[in-house]
Formats: sequence, C-alpha cells, structure tokens
Amino acid sequence: MTDPTELAERVREGDLRLHELEEHADPDAATAARRELLESETDADLDAIGSYGFEAERADPNVENMIGAAQVPVGIAGPVEINADEGDAPNGAAAGEFYLPIATTEGALVASINRGCSTINAAGGATARVTKSGMTRAPVFRVGDVAEAAALVEWVRENEERLAERAETTTSHGELLGVTPYVVGDSVFLRFRYDTKDAMGMNMATIATGEAAELVEEETSASLVALSGNLCTDKKPAAVNAVEGRGRSVTADVSLPRELVEDRLHTTPEAMAEINTRKNHVGSAKAGSLGFNAHVANAVAGMFLATGQDAAQVVEGSNAITTAEVRGAELYVSVSIASLEVGTVGGGTKLPTQAEALDLLGVRGGGDPPGANADALAECIAVCALAGELSLLAALGSRHLSSAHADLGR
Amino acid sequence: MTDPTELAERVREGDLRLHELEEHADPDAATAARRELLESETDADLDAIGSYGFEAERADPNVENMIGAAQVPVGIAGPVEINADEGDAPNGAAAGEFYLPIATTEGALVASINRGCSTINAAGGATARVTKSGMTRAPVFRVGDVAEAAALVEWVRENEERLAERAETTTSHGELLGVTPYVVGDSVFLRFRYDTKDAMGMNMATIATGEAAELVEEETSASLVALSGNLCTDKKPAAVNAVEGRGRSVTADVSLPRELVEDRLHTTPEAMAEINTRKNHVGSAKAGSLGFNAHVANAVAGMFLATGQDAAQVVEGSNAITTAEVRGAELYVSVSIASLEVGTVGGGTKLPTQAEALDLLGVRGGGDPPGANADALAECIAVCALAGELSLLAALGSRHLSSAHADLGR
Amino acid sequence: MTDPTELAERVREGDLRLHELEEHADPDAATAARRELLESETDADLDAIGSYGFEAERADPNVENMIGAAQVPVGIAGPVEINADEGDAPNGAAAGEFYLPIATTEGALVASINRGCSTINAAGGATARVTKSGMTRAPVFRVGDVAEAAALVEWVRENEERLAERAETTTSHGELLGVTPYVVGDSVFLRFRYDTKDAMGMNMATIATGEAAELVEEETSASLVALSGNLCTDKKPAAVNAVEGRGRSVTADVSLPRELVEDRLHTTPEAMAEINTRKNHVGSAKAGSLGFNAHVANAVAGMFLATGQDAAQVVEGSNAITTAEVRGAELYVSVSIASLEVGTVGGGTKLPTQAEALDLLGVRGGGDPPGANADALAECIAVCALAGELSLLAALGSRHLSSAHADLGR
Amino acid sequence: MTDPTELAERVREGDLRLHELEEHADPDAATAARRELLESETDADLDAIGSYGFEAERADPNVENMIGAAQVPVGIAGPVEINADEGDAPNGAAAGEFYLPIATTEGALVASINRGCSTINAAGGATARVTKSGMTRAPVFRVGDVAEAAALVEWVRENEERLAERAETTTSHGELLGVTPYVVGDSVFLRFRYDTKDAMGMNMATIATGEAAELVEEETSASLVALSGNLCTDKKPAAVNAVEGRGRSVTADVSLPRELVEDRLHTTPEAMAEINTRKNHVGSAKAGSLGFNAHVANAVAGMFLATGQDAAQVVEGSNAITTAEVRGAELYVSVSIASLEVGTVGGGTKLPTQAEALDLLGVRGGGDPPGANADALAECIAVCALAGELSLLAALGSRHLSSAHADLGR
Repeated sequence: MTDPTELAERVREGDLRLHELEEHADPDAATAARRELLESETDADLDAIGSYGFEAERADPNVENMIGAAQVPVGIAGPVEINADEGDAPNGAAAGEFYLPIATTEGALVASINRGCSTINAAGGATARVTKSGMTRAPVFRVGDVAEAAALVEWVRENEERLAERAETTTSHGELLGVTPYVVGDSVFLRFRYDTKDAMGMNMATIATGEAAELVEEETSASLVALSGNLCTDKKPAAVNAVEGRGRSVTADVSLPRELVEDRLHTTPEAMAEINTRKNHVGSAKAGSLGFNAHVANAVAGMFLATGQDAAQVVEGSNAITTAEVRGAELYVSVSIASLEVGTVGGGTKLPTQAEALDLLGVRGGGDPPGANADALAECIAVCALAGELSLLAALGSRHLSSAHADLGR
Repeated sequence: MTDPTELAERVREGDLRLHELEEHADPDAATAARRELLESETDADLDAIGSYGFEAERADPNVENMIGAAQVPVGIAGPVEINADEGDAPNGAAAGEFYLPIATTEGALVASINRGCSTINAAGGATARVTKSGMTRAPVFRVGDVAEAAALVEWVRENEERLAERAETTTSHGELLGVTPYVVGDSVFLRFRYDTKDAMGMNMATIATGEAAELVEEETSASLVALSGNLCTDKKPAAVNAVEGRGRSVTADVSLPRELVEDRLHTTPEAMAEINTRKNHVGSAKAGSLGFNAHVANAVAGMFLATGQDAAQVVEGSNAITTAEVRGAELYVSVSIASLEVGTVGGGTKLPTQAEALDLLGVRGGGDPPGANADALAECIAVCALAGELSLLAALGSRHLSSAHADLGR
Repeated sequence: MTDPTELAERVREGDLRLHELEEHADPDAATAARRELLESETDADLDAIGSYGFEAERADPNVENMIGAAQVPVGIAGPVEINADEGDAPNGAAAGEFYLPIATTEGALVASINRGCSTINAAGGATARVTKSGMTRAPVFRVGDVAEAAALVEWVRENEERLAERAETTTSHGELLGVTPYVVGDSVFLRFRYDTKDAMGMNMATIATGEAAELVEEETSASLVALSGNLCTDKKPAAVNAVEGRGRSVTADVSLPRELVEDRLHTTPEAMAEINTRKNHVGSAKAGSLGFNAHVANAVAGMFLATGQDAAQVVEGSNAITTAEVRGAELYVSVSIASLEVGTVGGGTKLPTQAEALDLLGVRGGGDPPGANADALAECIAVCALAGELSLLAALGSRHLSSAHADLGR
Repeated sequence: MTDPTELAERVREGDLRLHELEEHADPDAATAARRELLESETDADLDAIGSYGFEAERADPNVENMIGAAQVPVGIAGPVEINADEGDAPNGAAAGEFYLPIATTEGALVASINRGCSTINAAGGATARVTKSGMTRAPVFRVGDVAEAAALVEWVRENEERLAERAETTTSHGELLGVTPYVVGDSVFLRFRYDTKDAMGMNMATIATGEAAELVEEETSASLVALSGNLCTDKKPAAVNAVEGRGRSVTADVSLPRELVEDRLHTTPEAMAEINTRKNHVGSAKAGSLGFNAHVANAVAGMFLATGQDAAQVVEGSNAITTAEVRGAELYVSVSIASLEVGTVGGGTKLPTQAEALDLLGVRGGGDPPGANADALAECIAVCALAGELSLLAALGSRHLSSAHADLGR
C-alpha cells in the first residue's frame, strides 16, 4: 500500500491528478490521500468523513474521487402493520409488521411518524397497493418537418413489437410495456416504459432505449438528439409523472375510529378533514403545485436515504395527494404517491448500511416473484408517508383546537 | 451505563417502549439496545448502521429512536473557480477556488461534475449570484365569507409593520420582509417572507409567523386553521416557488470558447445548444414541468447530503432552468435555481461529517455579514449544478456526434 | 360609393389587394366586395355573415379585412342578487339585481346558470369582492452575464419611482403599482403591474412599459429583447397568473340552507361537497391543473363574448378554484377567479351589441370612482360562474343520488 | 303570434317566467318580449342585440332565454397555402389555399395574421398534421379503500373490450379508443378516450361514458360520483391535456428563407429565434406555464368564434408550443397545439354565420372519410396560429432591431 501522505504530495506537485489516485494505491489509501490534500489546502479537518465503516472498494460502483462518507442519523419508526389482515395470500406486496428506518437530520420527524404508526396500528393497520408500475425513458429525435413527425408516429405505432424485441436484447429482466410518441414541431419524443422488476431501472431503461433508438434511426429519417428528452421525466418536477406515474404508483390508507382521533391525536375527524382541505387541497391548488400533501417528501427522503435509493428522485416522490374525509364515525385518510422510483437491487442498495436497512424491511435483493420486493418497499414508504401525514395533520388540528378553546375562554 | 441487551429485553417484555430508552441509558447504549431488539425481531444484522463515528448525543437534535447512521459515500469535485476574477471586493458571496463535496450513490456523477468543473476552470471560472432571498411560511385562516376575506386582505395591507414587529419578537436574527395575502373563498393565506441570514430558516419563520398569526386572530375575525397552508411551499413541487423563489434564488454561468467545447467536451457549441433546447426547454415544456434542466437535482442532492441540508428540500432545489446559447465563438451556459433552501447554521449542519464538509467550502457557521455564508453555499451549489449540466449536455452531444459520424459512414 | 362587384373584380385581377379595399370604398362596400370575392373563389355563400346590424365603420378599431360579423345567440340568466344586503354603502362594486347576458352556442348552459341564479336568490343573494387588481406586462432584457443580471435587479429595486414616473408619462389614467424582477441566466424579466381603472388595460400597460423599458436601456447595460417576455402572462395558461393574479382577482360566495339544496337542487349538501372534493379538488390535482372548478370558463366565455371582452383571455379566466363545505345546516360554496381581465371601456366594449350588454349590467364606460365599473363587471362574472358551479354540482349530485337510489333497489 | 309587449307585461306581473315564454309565443316573439322586459327594468336599449339575422328557432339547440345575438366582427386572413405541395394524395387533411375567417374585437390581429399568411405563401406554404386524436371523458368513482381501488384498476384492464361494447351502444359514430385508470386513495378516475369523427364529441363521449359507467357499477363495488371527474379535462388549464392531448393534437410548420425574413419581416432569423427562446421558452418556463407560445389563443379564439366552436374550449387550445430555429439559410418555425377541440358537425356549427365560415374553409358537415373535415379544420387553425406567431415574433424582432439600430447611432 502506498503512503497517503506521499500520494497527496504527488498530487500537490502536479505529478498525479485527484482522480488518478486509485491507479496508484488501494481505494482506502486513495481516499486518505485525498483527505490529506484537502486538509492541507483548506481549513477543514476531515476526520469524521474519513471514519467510514466499510472498505472503500465497496463504494466503487457508487462514487468517484471518494474522500469518505457522510453519516446521517437513522431513527426507527414502528412497527406498523401493513396489509396485516390479508393473511396468507395478501394482494399487497408487503404484509405484516414493519420497522421503518428513516435517515434524517430534522428533529421531531421520526417521533412524528412513529406517532402516526402507532395510531395506524390502533386502527388495525394500513392497507397499501401498487396500482401502476413502469420505469420510463424518453429520447428526443429530430425530424425534417411535421410531415415526417407524423410519419414517425405512425411508424412507431406499427412497430411497437419490433421496438420491444430490440430493446429487450439488452436485458434479461426488463420488459418493454409500451412506447408513447409526442410531437412538438420537428422534435419527436418517444416515451418508453419498462417493467424493471426489483431494480429502480433507470440504467436498464436507458440502455434498452438506446438500442431501440438505433432501430428508429435505421428505419426512419429521424435522428437521435438525446437519449433523454426530459419527457421521462427524471429528477425534475413534472406533470407527466404526477399524471401518468413513473416507477411505482402506490397508495396507502387507513380508517381511524373517532375515539382514536380524539384520544390519541387530541383532535377531531372534522378538524383533520378541514385542515386537509384548506391546506393540502386548496392551498396547494393556489400554489400551482403538483404535491397535494403536507410533507410526504420527508418520509420519502428519510427512507430513500436509509435504503440506498437515489436522493435526487425524492423530487418525483413528492408528487403525492393526501385525502381525508369523515365517514360517519370514522376518519378515512389516504396518501397516493404517483411516481415513487425504488429498487431493492443495484444502485446504492448494496452499500453496507443501506443493505441492512433493506434487511430490516425484509426486502433486500430480488423478490419472488420478481418485482415483489420493490413493490413491498414502495408500500412501506407509502405507509410511512401516511403515518407522517396523519401525525402532522393531527398536530395542526390539536394546536388549532387548543387555540379554539382559548378563543372560547376569552 | 445500562446494558443494551438488558434494555432490549425490557422492551420485548413490554416494560419499556422504544422511544423511552434514552430515559434509562446513555444515548449510545439506547441505540445499541434498539439494534439488538430489531435484530432479534427481524432477519437483519445492523452492525454497519451501528458503526457510526460520533457520539449519539450529538444527533439528539436531529433524530429520535436512533439506531445508528446511514453512511453515504462522499466524492470530491473540483477545485472550481467561482467569481475568481472579482478580486478583493467580490459582489458574489463566494470567491475563489472551491472543492465541492458530493454525497451520492450514483456512479459516474462525481466524475461527471468534476469534468464540468475542469471545463469551467479552463474557461476562467464561473460567475454566480444570489438574486433574491427569503424564507416563507404561509398560514391559512378561515373567515366567514368573501366580504370578510376582502376586509382581512385590507387589514393586512395596512398592518404590515405591526405584523413585522410582532413576528420579530420571536427572533434576534430574522427580519420580516413582507406579507402577501391570497384569497380562495373563505380561506385566506398570508405568505410571510423573512430574511433568516445564515439559517435555512424554516423553524425561525414558523415560530415568528405563529406569533404574527396571533395578532391576526386578536384583531380580526379570522381563525387560524393551519400554520402552514401549503402556499409556503415546503417540500412539494409548486409553481409559487419556481416563480417567486424560496430560500435563495441563485444563478451561475460560464462562457466556453469554441475550442474548449471541441477539444475537451468533444462536441460543438451548436450541438450543446440544440440539445439544451430540445431536451431542457421543449421536452420539459411538453412534460408540464417546473424543471427545465438536465439533472440539477443531482448536484443539489449531493451537496445537500454532504453539508447537512434537508434532503426533502431537494424537491424545491430542482426548480431550475438551464440555458445554452451560441454567442459567436463562445457557448454561454447558465443555471438558475429558483428556490434553493440552504443554511450554514442549525439543522444538520452541526453533525460531524456535515460540519467538515461546510469547512471544506469555508462556509460553516454564521457569515460576515450575516447571510454571507449561506449565500456562498448557494453559489457553490449553483456552480456545481452548472458543472453537471455542462458535462451531461456534452456527453449527449458527443454521443450524438459520434452517432452522426457513424451515419455518415453508412 | 364604389360598386362592390367592381371592386371584387379588381382584386381578382390583382389590381387591388384584399386589405386595400377601404382605401377605395366606404367600409360597408369594402366588406361586400370581400364577400363577393370569397363567394366567387369558394363554395361559400356569405349572406348571414354579411347581414350584420351596424355600420362597418364602427368596427374599424376592432378588425381588418372585415367581411361581416359572426352572430352568437345571447341568452339571459337572472336576475341575481349581488351584495344585495349591503344597502347604500356597499363594499362590493356591484350591488343589487343583475340580469346576466351570456353569448353561447352550448345548449343548456344558460338554463343551468339561470337555475343557479334562482337558487342564489332564494338564499338571499351572493356576495362578491375584487381582492386584488392590476394589469401586467413583463418585458425580457438580455444582459451580459449573471453579474449584470444581479446588478440590474438591484437597479430596478432602487429606481422603481423613476420607472413609475417614466411609465406614467404615457397615460392619464394608468398608475404603476410595482415592478418585480426575475432572473434566468442572462435573461431578466421585469413584471410591471398597473392600475388601469376601467380599461382591461393591456394596451395601456404595453405602451407605458415600452417607455419604462427605454429608461432601463438608457441607464443600464440591458437590452430589450421583447416587450412581452411571457411572464405577463397574456393568453396562455400560467401559474404566475393563478398565483399572483392578473386583471381582477375576484371571488364570490353563497350559503345555501339545507332545505334549499334538497328541495330545489334535489340533492344534499353532503353530496355536493363530496363531488366538489373528488372532482374539482382531487381530480384537478391529479390532472396537473390550474383550474379547480367544474366549468367556470363557460360563464367567463359567455359573458366575455356578450360584453366585448377579449375571447382569448378566457384562458386566464379559467384559473379558478371552487370550494364547497357543509357548515351545519348550510352548504357554503365559493368561486375564486385569480385572473379575470375585464374592462368597460375600450376594446370590443364600444361595439353595438356589446355596449348594450354592458348597459344591461349598468356598467358601461368609466366608473365612479374610476375602476368601479370594471370591478362590478368582474363581480357579476364571478357570481355568474358561481351560479354555474352550483347548478352543475347539483346536477351531478342529483343524478348520483338517483343512481344511488336505484342501487338500493337492486 | 302573441304580442311581445303583452308577454313582457305578463312576466312583469309574475304570471309567466322568463324561460316559459317559448311555450306561449313563437321563438322570435319570445326574444322580443324578453328584450322589452329587460329594457323596462334596466337602462338598456337592446336594439342591436335584437337585430340578429336568422330565425330564433335555429338557435333553439344552442341557447335558452334568448334575447338576440352578439355580433362580433369577422375579418379574413389569407389565402394561405396548406399542404399545397402534396398534390392529389395529400397526407394532411387540409390541402390547398384557404381563406381563414377570424371573429375578433382586437384591432390589428387579423392584419397580423394576414401578414403571416403571405409570408408563409412566399415560402411555399405551410405543412400541417394531426398527430393524435381523441375526445375524453373521465368519471370519478368512489371505492371502499385502496385494495378495492387496485381491484377496480385490474378489472378495467381486463374488461376494456366490454366497456367499449357497452359505451358504443349509445353511438353510431363514436369508437372507444381506450380507458386509462388513475387512483387517488378511494377515488378512481377512468379516462375514456373516443374517436368522435367530425364531431367535437363532448356530448357523445359523455353519453357513451355514462353507459360504460353503469357496467362498472354493475360488476364492481365502485359507485359513480360524477360523470366528469376533471381528469378529462374540459375547459380548465390542465397538464393532462398538454401532455396527452384532447380533441386533436395538431402541428404546423414552415421554413422561411433568410431573404424572406429580412425583406418581408424586417428582421433576421437569428433575432426571431432568440426572441422565441427568451420569451416563449424561458419566459413561459419561468411563469409556470403550459403555453409556450406568443399568442396562439388569439388565432384559436378567432377561428373558434367564427366557425361555431365552443368558446370556453379556447382554454385547452392555448396549450401550444412554438419553436423557432435557424437552419443554415432558413428559419424553421413550428406551432404544436396539444388539445384543440373542434368539430364540423353539431354544436354551434349549424348556426348561419358559423356554417358559412365552415363553408369558406370547405369543411362543413361530415368529412370523407369521417373525421377528415374536423382534421382539416384543426390543420387550418394550426396554420392560422403559425401565421400569428410568425408575425408577432417578427414585429418584436423588427422593433428590437430598430431599437438596436438607434442604439448604434447614439
């Protein structure tokens, strides 16, 4: 093993570049050398970043120019019952009791979700379902004019099977579910949608679409401009995801008896429904929002971080609608996340802490049948979000009630 | 110190609840006990999550029911020059060379941003500016009817100073910049906007607004329904943020000489501009998006995680527009992020690895003048995003070029 | 007067062009000549279009190449009571009984709105208020880079008074209310907002902004690219209007006793509230909509056409939110239109049928105080929309009830 | 015929109601009686509204409580060549020279579009295509919980053929193209899409969907809440239409030689492309818009009014994207309207002036093959919009140029 100090010196002297260190040292020494260099060039001390708990080599598929790891506290909420009453042949992918790992730096978040979980349990558990599934990639092609655009649309509609065959040459797991064409002048976007089983599937979809795009170029006058034409839509807030879904469209709900709302949440079904309407529906409507919820992104971000999902895809995970209605003696609350992009294989899921968090949920690796683990993860996150919504609406409701009580006392 | 095994046993027996462990043991023993319990109730082994590199007590303000920490690899991009030519009296908040810490699990991301950084340096560095600043909170009030709503709007317009006075009683740093009323039937939303200096400011804004809301209730017929009425908008994709901004509105740009584009990025200014138009503008337009960029959320998420920002606020950080235009012999590229919510004090910034990452950028703690550190952090993130956009557009462009070359060979 | 047949012949021979006819004949002869020409070149007979009931000269400010007029049936709804109980010193601009003229070709629309009006009357009338007002124009400027953009923003914030002075040199009525700058890379948008009194104000705002833009160019490095940079936003669906308003932000409401809902609308408050939630809130949320209502655009379009407003601005008039809630023994329903662009002077308001329709409402010409007539028109349209919402929600509700009854019989 | 004065008197006395007049008099007398009544109760004189040029009976399917007609000036633009070079077997539905009838009150609009038309002709004409077609209706159903929602989605996917059979029992022309389910908690929306041939098709789609909804209720646990659940989306700005289309998705383009731009439009291809980028792309992006164009709604509104389309559907017609790019010695410009809802049979198309306007375009009544006339009308409107965009971009460009020239002279 080469000495980090010596390596750092060679970088300083211009003899080596930062990203070449792995060629001259084992991964851990390379990260140490980078830290040394940075410490000498800035006022920073990088001991904490340097005290990561795994071999740097394991992060090789996940990062370059590694200097260590960020450590984000993980709290646990639950256990929470999901699809618990469905017995041995559940229709949901998740079934049973789940402890939810949440990585966060926002104080009170885990406690809040935990309160939601225990409320859900007291009501007999939550129900959750994945109602649509498919990872998308939408390349953009240039054509000569709108007549060519129309011809390309026609060609795509007639050749969907061939596109599927071609795309699927690149993958043993993925399956092309469909291709939707969109025309804007001389730009034609083809939105490919794949079943990627337990993988989040972005890479699989990109590679398969690249292959299919070649068929398009071979057989038509169209030229590929970019493999992603932003109609996918990855890591941007976009109505196409909120409407049509991306990754998993998942929804979870629970019915709370009135006494439970009053005794445990210290508010009323009516107050929670009113808050949900004025805040999550009317307020979000007025804001020009695609997210009609209180803080679903908190649950999504917390579980994404803990389980090795892509943190930038929290963006799409916030496309969620919360509903709350009084049904006689019960309060019905639901959360529907349109575009939750999750996987239990690949990406960050193999890293040590992330793999452990997936184990905690019992969903690490490929599912049986394929896709079942990622479905179950999606359902867990949806229930986590539901718990968070319940808790925050109740907090607003009880504060509101107490202020209402104070009013009465005036 | 109490024995974790014993504590876990007491939880199993129902004698203690998970969240009560800190009352009976020091924080690290409590986390150990929770891991033991979870390991006994699931198939998970939690060693990696348990090998966090700091005292659990430090995470006390950030998490409850702690079981350990998620470790996310951190890579380094740069150094990159920001506002470098502005000398001793820069108008940007950041000035000089910056190493950018990026926590991610997406392979190739750091390398890609790094390539963007070196391209920016070769062009003489990037310019960045915060052009608007203000953290918002928008409570929703119930009024009797639209006549009362109109009267409330009038009252607010006439009492903005009093609202400011009242709000500012709760904070030594924060300053109320303005209040904008919005009416939807019998719901009235008041969007309070604050200068929160170097704090991200969500808590400060909430507390101050709570106080101001009391004044509203005291003096008008309005009743507070929820302290957040979703017109803020926090952690949801929303046009109000994309249009009016939240946190910092920050923009960064660079001009690349044609040779640089050709030699280093292996494409042409024209190809990059075309891709930007068809993908980031036309594609995003067709997608009904609020994000007209390639992958700004990747840079935002990576630096947010590394520096202790709120991961759920990556949502708003993706409200960004990338432009690219050929200007004679140069390619001009810019990235404008409308609502980047960052702080260098409070929240996750005090945790060990996060504090180190802020030190690496030289922006930890309160700035001089107040707000300058958070401004500088925002500019660094904007330049990081710019580097990422450059690199991805170039990658699409060069692939496109090579495919174009292949076409010619047919 | 020149003979139309002869003129048509000269056009056919290429001696004259279609748009030059008014130079050689009086306006009515010119329109006749055009019809002759078109009849000879197509299979159309244009008698109906030619039998317009006014002198063509009157339409001179409104159209070119005139061939006649489209005749759209006008029905009448009402009378409906608006702000009726406010007596001699109403706070609403409209007060009393109003007959609402609606130009439409959609059968059942007028009847439906009429039913809504009589329901409103039975409940004691509707309340309506304009809560925000201002016509906007947002030119886009090009600057050198983001440093210049930031400097321009600074300059604008410091020179708002001078911009107002300069803008107001062009108008005796208009008043600049404020200028909001937005930066996207090297594009800077300045959204000017004016009080244009009883004029819809688009032209006034454009001319005044043109003048102010000259000041910007004189004193800064910015170059004007387009007087409208689409952040105005005129005649496009845009969140900026839905959030911040354009023209009038107007809202109307009514409380219906339960018996009224049951006896006259044949449904229940609960059914109407449920439909409003699932359709207007949840359905619109899922659709990625800026319009959370049932068919407000019908009322807006019908009254716009009848009263000489700009039909293309129906687009912005559809940015409306309908709410419905059960309040004990009453059903509260409101409609809030964010961006209703109306005027009672200028534009199409001087044309014969349009002026009569304004007279019917008692709002033709300049108001006292200035702006009062346009405010009153806005309130009338909002109440018309409210009547339409009530009626459609009730129709869905009663059908739903009957189907529910049928269900019970199974 | 009963005397109008006498009838008016009976209404005044409460003996008759306004909407009952047709039971006691012929339609024209009834409208006269209403005018008399209104004239006596207000200060309005209704002569112009009363001098409509057709028998009131003809408007019976279009309006209730008729008092007359609004007269909107109609100007003519063109002729303009559309798909002219496609000879005898065009792929576009429209082919040849078209005079475009535009009903408007906005001065300069027709002249502006006319200038665009002559520019298009000088470039050899425009190309236009309908690339997607289908009228939608999306009822909302209530289910018990998300498990039932998931089951309903499953049922729909397996029973699409039966739904089609059932829906099509109500129509001889319409054809169900597909049903897409969307789940939000306990609300399930089914978006039915129909080929409605030459009819705009809203009524056809509603009736057919009503029938299909009965099948859903018969065979599943779902209850219909509202036949329209706003995911259709009719007469509201909504991303679902902008993304997926509604009615016709139509696009038109033209390539202008540089000399033409310079000589006739007095600007340069570069200036027009820049304006289009900064205004229509970047400005609209920043505005949170679904309309990335300059003033497409003007062309849509003008031709909708003239040809008897539904004026409230101008809302959806504004979901349009304009592109402009310099291609060597040419400027390429396109307009793509996502959701243009047009028909040549039914609705307002049978009214006298409206029918004549359709004759002028040669598209009145059912097409051969069915749908061809409505397709052709859509293409004509798209080209009209293209002409309008060209002209406005050029006006901005030339003003800009002249101001630039003035700058140089300073």
